Amino acid sequence: MQAKIISIGDELLIGQIVNTNASFIAERLYSIGIPVVKIITIGDNEQDLLNELKESEEKFDVTIITGGLGPTHDDITKPILIKFFNDELIIDEKVLEHVKKMFASRNIEMPKSNTGQAEVPKNSKVIWNNNGTAPGIWIEKENKVYVSLPGVPYEMKSMITDFVLPELQKTFKDKFDGFYLSKTILTTGISESALFEKIGNIKEVIGDNKLAFLPSVEMIRLRIDIKAKDKQTAEEKFKEIEKKLEAKISDYMFGYDEDKMEKLIGDMLIKKNLKLAVAESCTGGNISFLIVNIPGSSEYYLGGVCTYANDAKQKMLGVKKETLESYGAVSEKTAIEMAEGVRKEFKADIAISTTGIAGPAGGSQAKPVGLVYIGYSDKNKSFAEKFYFGDNRMKNITRATIAAMNILRKELLKI
Amino acid sequence: MQAKIISIGDELLIGQIVNTNASFIAERLYSIGIPVVKIITIGDNEQDLLNELKESEEKFDVTIITGGLGPTHDDITKPILIKFFNDELIIDEKVLEHVKKMFASRNIEMPKSNTGQAEVPKNSKVIWNNNGTAPGIWIEKENKVYVSLPGVPYEMKSMITDFVLPELQKTFKDKFDGFYLSKTILTTGISESALFEKIGNIKEVIGDNKLAFLPSVEMIRLRIDIKAKDKQTAEEKFKEIEKKLEAKISDYMFGYDEDKMEKLIGDMLIKKNLKLAVAESCTGGNISFLIVNIPGSSEYYLGGVCTYANDAKQKMLGVKKETLESYGAVSEKTAIEMAEGVRKEFKADIAISTTGIAGPAGGSQAKPVGLVYIGYSDKNKSFAEKFYFGDNRMKNITRATIAAMNILRKELLKI
Repeated sequence: MQAKIISIGDELLIGQIVNTNASFIAERLYSIGIPVVKIITIGDNEQDLLNELKESEEKFDVTIITGGLGPTHDDITKPILIKFFNDELIIDEKVLEHVKKMFASRNIEMPKSNTGQAEVPKNSKVIWNNNGTAPGIWIEKENKVYVSLPGVPYEMKSMITDFVLPELQKTFKDKFDGFYLSKTILTTGISESALFEKIGNIKEVIGDNKLAFLPSVEMIRLRIDIKAKDKQTAEEKFKEIEKKLEAKISDYMFGYDEDKMEKLIGDMLIKKNLKLAVAESCTGGNISFLIVNIPGSSEYYLGGVCTYANDAKQKMLGVKKETLESYGAVSEKTAIEMAEGVRKEFKADIAISTTGIAGPAGGSQAKPVGLVYIGYSDKNKSFAEKFYFGDNRMKNITRATIAAMNILRKELLKI
Repeated sequence: MQAKIISIGDELLIGQIVNTNASFIAERLYSIGIPVVKIITIGDNEQDLLNELKESEEKFDVTIITGGLGPTHDDITKPILIKFFNDELIIDEKVLEHVKKMFASRNIEMPKSNTGQAEVPKNSKVIWNNNGTAPGIWIEKENKVYVSLPGVPYEMKSMITDFVLPELQKTFKDKFDGFYLSKTILTTGISESALFEKIGNIKEVIGDNKLAFLPSVEMIRLRIDIKAKDKQTAEEKFKEIEKKLEAKISDYMFGYDEDKMEKLIGDMLIKKNLKLAVAESCTGGNISFLIVNIPGSSEYYLGGVCTYANDAKQKMLGVKKETLESYGAVSEKTAIEMAEGVRKEFKADIAISTTGIAGPAGGSQAKPVGLVYIGYSDKNKSFAEKFYFGDNRMKNITRATIAAMNILRKELLKI
């Protein structure tokens, strides 16, 4: 079983909009065991679409077309489907009724150009559009399915969910050859290549399944793709693989799929009934912002201070003048005093702090751009860790943020 | 002139990530007069990529490939380029040096798998990657250009901007049939439909050129596409259009293209030699973070306080207990006292504050979710403005952030 997505629209080709339709459809098809192996974006061009349909006829079980179905002059999908399948357009009375109603409900007279929306190929099924005027089209030919949907995301989405997915499962019920599971393990605090080496023999860990490394500035995501005879077997296989990974890289693993570190921390703080405060220098408020993004964070987050200037570190956080003079603002001792200070000022149970040289200026031989100290303080202990994050300002801020949250997470696990 | 984009990556085909790379590249190529007419997404599959390269050889002047260039096992682009162009890989010493340095700057020993990153096709130009280890590759053959770039967005983007675009303009300088200018005017503080009505007769404003409304949570961008016989004529046309827009919507216009409000504010603060402090409640540190993102912000930014809890508003900012009790934390008076308080505490010249109900919980009939007060204070005056931003938490935080910066910007224009 293989599927192809054809996205039609000049606005995609000039980069005015991002193709979120394709990722939605791909994700949905994959979830029912029909992997998409090709996504193609073309403009309102007859020959291009004909070529793609020809290729689909040869290679793909399922082809989903989005866009090119509206009432305006540049919508070409239907005439080309007619041509390709040697069919003709007929008016679907039910659809016409629906289109008229949609206009009436907005107190607008239906423009003539909209009559065409009720036309569908004779040898097709109509896919009902509850959210708009253009119907979808379902064509079956020689055990292959061709679906044409409008490009408006919320119209397309409910047509996929309500009609296309169940209809595909019915049509191909004898062709499905197993269950697909795709799960992502989140890791942080290690580079892609170091992670690769720690995992070692990948075949030995994942067997016949697939492992992909997805790096970003703050983390490496490990996506594991499993194909099994059913859901239970797939989940058991995943657990086996996860266990093997844990034996090698558990220090760096912190969550799954869409998990957010700040949400995991928030859940732990609620469970342990602890209040948090944050003192930021080089991260500039980023940690505070991420924590506040989580709904309900006011339950455990008291607030934070961004002490960008040295004076503010003394005045707002009680960092000692001697500390700043002897060790500098970017030092282990300052980081510790910042964490301790903000914990006291906000009467918090637990606190983290960041101080570093984000760059591009401000570095020296002894303290280069990218040097960051992260401080931690609770009622039993205080400490700071030293990091080098490289010479890019934005990356430094992002890496210091995730590293600080990771220290907090690890300490919370121990409490 | 026609271009094609090939995006490689299973994570795109299973819908795990959205293809923002393709829209970025398409938009940039279009802006220099090289329209993209096809975008194709495929997996790590040799035959698919070979087929696409073959089609490019027949039909496209420019082919941009992203993805499949990292250090791990699933990266396939380079071996396939070698095969297709009948070339061989050689180590580029400069790139090897760079890769080693990137690791050294983070105090990490370079894993062996990273040596491969310094390998490039013999008959190619290296595209320098300032933000990562994988170099880009530029291949020219029979008046056609093939570019291979890493899939990591921030690495790819600067390689497109700094190298690929100027190099394409040089390579094809005799093939361009006119000058394309695409420029964006940034507006904020107004809805898309209100902006549309204020502009009125669009034809009268833009003539034969194109105007597109690009709305996001924080702003509406107006993209103006002009084609003219040369650069100077295009720029004159743009100035004419801008003048007409200014007569209608100057209150909302604040910048161009990739301008950032926080950078414009920073420039003004430097020029006027003023120091800034920020007090945030509902925005949770976002304003502070955006300001700190700008290199050199330590020149004018003293710091900020995120007072999420009421106690902190009193203790850290000196907001009066009576104010909180009589008017509440989300009130005009609290916003003003927060701005005044943070200005005093940090000994700043100018300060802004935010306090509001971000949601989803915490709203009431009198103070619904989305109600936000933004405070301002300098040595001559203090005030607060009231806003309603709707019922979505993330949108509220984003809108409050840009609204606060916009108030600061407008006041700075007056000083």
